[in-house]
Amino acid sequence: MDDKEYKVTFEPEGKSVFVPEGTSLYEAAGEAGIILKAECGGGGVCGNCRVVVTKGAFEQKGSERFLTPKEIGGGEVLACRASVKGDMVVEIPLTSRLFEQKILTDGVETELRLSPNIRKLFVKVKEPTLEDQRADLDRVWAAVSTALEKTAETPPKVALDVLRMLPEALRSKEPGGSPGPGTLKEGELSVTLVLDGDEIVGFEAGDTTASIFGVAFDIGTTTVVGYLLDLATGKQLAVAARTNPQTSYGDDVIARINYTMTKKDGLEEMHRRISSCMNDIIAELARSAGVEREAIYEATTTGNTTMNHLFLKIDPRNLALNPYVGALRSSIEERAEALDVRINRFGKVYAMPSIGGFVGGDTVAVILASELHRSEKLKFALDIGTNGELVMGNRERLVACSTAAGPAFEGARITFGMRASDGAIEKVVITERAVEVNVIGNAKPIGLCGTALIDAIAELIKAGVINSHGRMLRAEELPSSVPDFIRRRVVVHGKHGASFVIVAGNDTQTGEDILLTQKDVRETQLAKGAIFAGYQILKSVLGVSDEDVTEVLLAGAFGNYIRREQAKRIGLLPDLPSGKIKFIGNAAGSGAKMVLLAKELRDEAREISRKTEYIELAVKADFHRIFADSMFFPESIACE
Amino acid sequence: MDDKEYKVTFEPEGKSVFVPEGTSLYEAAGEAGIILKAECGGGGVCGNCRVVVTKGAFEQKGSERFLTPKEIGGGEVLACRASVKGDMVVEIPLTSRLFEQKILTDGVETELRLSPNIRKLFVKVKEPTLEDQRADLDRVWAAVSTALEKTAETPPKVALDVLRMLPEALRSKEPGGSPGPGTLKEGELSVTLVLDGDEIVGFEAGDTTASIFGVAFDIGTTTVVGYLLDLATGKQLAVAARTNPQTSYGDDVIARINYTMTKKDGLEEMHRRISSCMNDIIAELARSAGVEREAIYEATTTGNTTMNHLFLKIDPRNLALNPYVGALRSSIEERAEALDVRINRFGKVYAMPSIGGFVGGDTVAVILASELHRSEKLKFALDIGTNGELVMGNRERLVACSTAAGPAFEGARITFGMRASDGAIEKVVITERAVEVNVIGNAKPIGLCGTALIDAIAELIKAGVINSHGRMLRAEELPSSVPDFIRRRVVVHGKHGASFVIVAGNDTQTGEDILLTQKDVRETQLAKGAIFAGYQILKSVLGVSDEDVTEVLLAGAFGNYIRREQAKRIGLLPDLPSGKIKFIGNAAGSGAKMVLLAKELRDEAREISRKTEYIELAVKADFHRIFADSMFFPESIACE
Repeated sequence: MDDKEYKVTFEPEGKSVFVPEGTSLYEAAGEAGIILKAECGGGGVCGNCRVVVTKGAFEQKGSERFLTPKEIGGGEVLACRASVKGDMVVEIPLTSRLFEQKILTDGVETELRLSPNIRKLFVKVKEPTLEDQRADLDRVWAAVSTALEKTAETPPKVALDVLRMLPEALRSKEPGGSPGPGTLKEGELSVTLVLDGDEIVGFEAGDTTASIFGVAFDIGTTTVVGYLLDLATGKQLAVAARTNPQTSYGDDVIARINYTMTKKDGLEEMHRRISSCMNDIIAELARSAGVEREAIYEATTTGNTTMNHLFLKIDPRNLALNPYVGALRSSIEERAEALDVRINRFGKVYAMPSIGGFVGGDTVAVILASELHRSEKLKFALDIGTNGELVMGNRERLVACSTAAGPAFEGARITFGMRASDGAIEKVVITERAVEVNVIGNAKPIGLCGTALIDAIAELIKAGVINSHGRMLRAEELPSSVPDFIRRRVVVHGKHGASFVIVAGNDTQTGEDILLTQKDVRETQLAKGAIFAGYQILKSVLGVSDEDVTEVLLAGAFGNYIRREQAKRIGLLPDLPSGKIKFIGNAAGSGAKMVLLAKELRDEAREISRKTEYIELAVKADFHRIFADSMFFPESIACE
Repeated sequence: MDDKEYKVTFEPEGKSVFVPEGTSLYEAAGEAGIILKAECGGGGVCGNCRVVVTKGAFEQKGSERFLTPKEIGGGEVLACRASVKGDMVVEIPLTSRLFEQKILTDGVETELRLSPNIRKLFVKVKEPTLEDQRADLDRVWAAVSTALEKTAETPPKVALDVLRMLPEALRSKEPGGSPGPGTLKEGELSVTLVLDGDEIVGFEAGDTTASIFGVAFDIGTTTVVGYLLDLATGKQLAVAARTNPQTSYGDDVIARINYTMTKKDGLEEMHRRISSCMNDIIAELARSAGVEREAIYEATTTGNTTMNHLFLKIDPRNLALNPYVGALRSSIEERAEALDVRINRFGKVYAMPSIGGFVGGDTVAVILASELHRSEKLKFALDIGTNGELVMGNRERLVACSTAAGPAFEGARITFGMRASDGAIEKVVITERAVEVNVIGNAKPIGLCGTALIDAIAELIKAGVINSHGRMLRAEELPSSVPDFIRRRVVVHGKHGASFVIVAGNDTQTGEDILLTQKDVRETQLAKGAIFAGYQILKSVLGVSDEDVTEVLLAGAFGNYIRREQAKRIGLLPDLPSGKIKFIGNAAGSGAKMVLLAKELRDEAREISRKTEYIELAVKADFHRIFADSMFFPESIACE
């Protein structure tokens, strides 16, 4: 193991990540937020995760089965079979993307699958005359109703303030787009209609059909991510993320709800914070892609139930009070303006439906993106954030629950915890001779992020420093097999008590030792115990065992960084072959993008929302026993 | 003929009118804006216009055929067969009303016909528990979806700001209505839903189903009338009228459109004027009926196309520019708030559809109320205002046109013209010995209103003072048969030229003679010529003659005051038996009320709007010849 890091740049996004030497391109792509198509979960079996290396050093093993010599000569390789050996530039074809391939393939398929709710239609109509005095709207509607699978007799749906634009847009001599009147025949007028489903939400002068965009939001408790998509081509143009500015009012959903209950205008403030954060993201996306904000006509959002209530400015108090019910489960479509989201003033927001009090639209999005609801086989999907959301099932039945994992894996409530940013130790390995760490940004370390926390505990369990009950042994209790370089790091810190020194003060940015403390181990036990208990209960509700679970799908930013062996060692993930544990990237974000690009998926989202059974852990008689059991670390796991 | 006037008060409205002795109760009711059911048009044939005289002197002839002695003993009489002989109080049963009878009959019929678009549903639901954590909206929807002929799976339609009210309304301990939680069982919650079609537009604490109101508006170029209706019972609670405050920017639609084209924010100002006028009316209606403005959830509006554009704040300029097209023909449903109409903040406005550039929603309303579109027989309806709107046809085919009659019949552009208010001469009769007049309010006269203008001209034609070309003969040209008392009144006024003295200065309020001038006759010829030409052209489009027209329906305030014989004499109305000429009251207002009380009539309104053919007079090759011919006065008419 080496602590070298290399820069891998993915095209056409131009997105770069730094990864340790030896990381597979499949995992690197996941870190860059790009989900590759890989039915086998990166096991080198399905041959779907083809990418093209255009620059840089790598090592591959096993791609040959799937590729012709010509393809190999052209730089093609299976992402899961290629490991990074230097800075690289890698091109990811549309056909290798888990989500985009469904929406964007070539030929007829493209036409069928790219079906955004928002679209534009350019129409030419005859100028009115004394012999043909139809009103503007009738005239335009007659020309487009066939294209909309309506008859001219069906009254068009159009809001009044949109309609007010029609007379001028229809007669404009200076159109915004092209072809303008220059290409119109004498006695013709033209206009571009913007359609939201079958409602007219805009009239624009000239032909502006090429300019239509949407933005998808994943509103996390901690992080908000926005994606700008070209709705004419389906292409993703930009991504931007921000820390959720509500975080300063509390790092979990209960704290946020409390704020709305105790502060005057607290709900208003929470809404204002999230909408202004989204507006910052929209501004950044528009700027970086060179797109006019006015050309963005729709925003889709997904998030947990509390985030959804706060964004929609709906009183969330009943989510925090027994029996924890929200105001709505269904999706909402509303004028963006009414939600203070600054896109086109007639644009809409579609907020995804939820499942239950603590299983929100983000989980619906995860199911949608991972296709759990269409799967014949039983699968288990896990999105670890401040809450852990768990779904298990197949197309017959889906059950879901939420566990209050707490923010430990996001670095909070951990003595030297921090988020995965520059200076964070993201990996800890205890080799035969040393404790080695990887630091993000190649800087001196400041603290531990979630993956390093899991690593450190897993490695110390393996080394015998932490026992299965989670107790950190004192130096004098350590078995004799523990080597000295480890033994020396087991300390009783004046302030923090029983601890393990991960990095000594002379190698840190602050000069202070970076410790893993007994308290950190207990926090981690609570977090992983909550998640694992949820897993156990979902299995028992469905009456299945570990063997029946054909796949474990890890969603979310954190999920994609987890090292599966270490996560199994601490009992965060079930002890299944790692080949069954797959990364599916930011599936919540993918779900939000999918409903932006394909309106029929909103019906699927509604079905998922309606059919997925919400399991309230609090009413399960044996929850507390299972939770207590789940806090232990496994005595042994099947090593691969 | 006598110039005595009596006060007739109609119950339950409590509306009073002053009418000359001998007026039939049928006509008096019409003047009070109450339209009686009378298939025979007041001919004593159908027996439908039964009323109950509770006080006062009258004379009747012909009621006996239809009434039992007991009914007669109880004061019942046919309104068309009873003439006023003193001050009276008359009760009009619901079953005798042309419109209300359809909506409001007793028994099952009522249930079927009173079907307002806006309604309320009170629902009790089980309180959520850990075993039943359905979201508030799901819980309520499951309870009401059956009543709405939906399944619980159909997602409810609800605007976000309405939804925001649900959690609190559902859990309120201080409900606005009753039965409140006092009548709820333990573990129950309740809420009242307000529904607009199948969209939820309100949540109210407790049971408020008894409190639901709507307001119907007839937005005339000159007068705006509002009606407050109880949507739970269908009963009309109050009526109020105001002069359209846009009038100060011009008395016809073209002047109003010009204002929006030439003044900065002119359209905004026009909209502001009309909406604030409507708000004044709403305030008056609510106050007089003791109703909360917040309990009014819908307003329906009808008006000509220009009024509709101005109210909706849609640029009307293309209505004034050849080829005179509007932005929309269809109806609009919009939040009242968006139109600055102050009813409940989630309430809606439904603006009726139009027919063509100058045939608006008011004509659709007239057709709807008069049931022209359902008639087997060919009928002709005429609404005389600043514009004259004309419709002819039956259920097979309807044609309509608009004629710029000008405001002559409203008193404008007439030398001593005025509106029908106190001091206006409303009737002129030349007897064998004298020129007699009726003055509104029993005051000394100030000027002539429209009916008096028609009377005066008709009487002077009969007397030989005005010839068929409309020329007022000079005194020396008068035939010797003209009596002296008439001859003395034919003068050449220093300022006004050739004139007839209607009332000499010593009997007027101002001390000045009230004259009918040659210019007034010319104005009247233009006005009646335009209307009569429209009538001729509609007949020619349909290929019918006078004999095919089974009824002439006179709508509008002015139409209901017209004396049919006189109108025929000047050629304003076709020379048909007066029995065929019927008053249908403010049919535009009735239409607006009908669509408020029965939502299915909105579909009929849409069909009327779609099917009625708009005839543009300007493109009719022979229009100018027909118009010129129509300006003459008939040489003779069939006197009855």
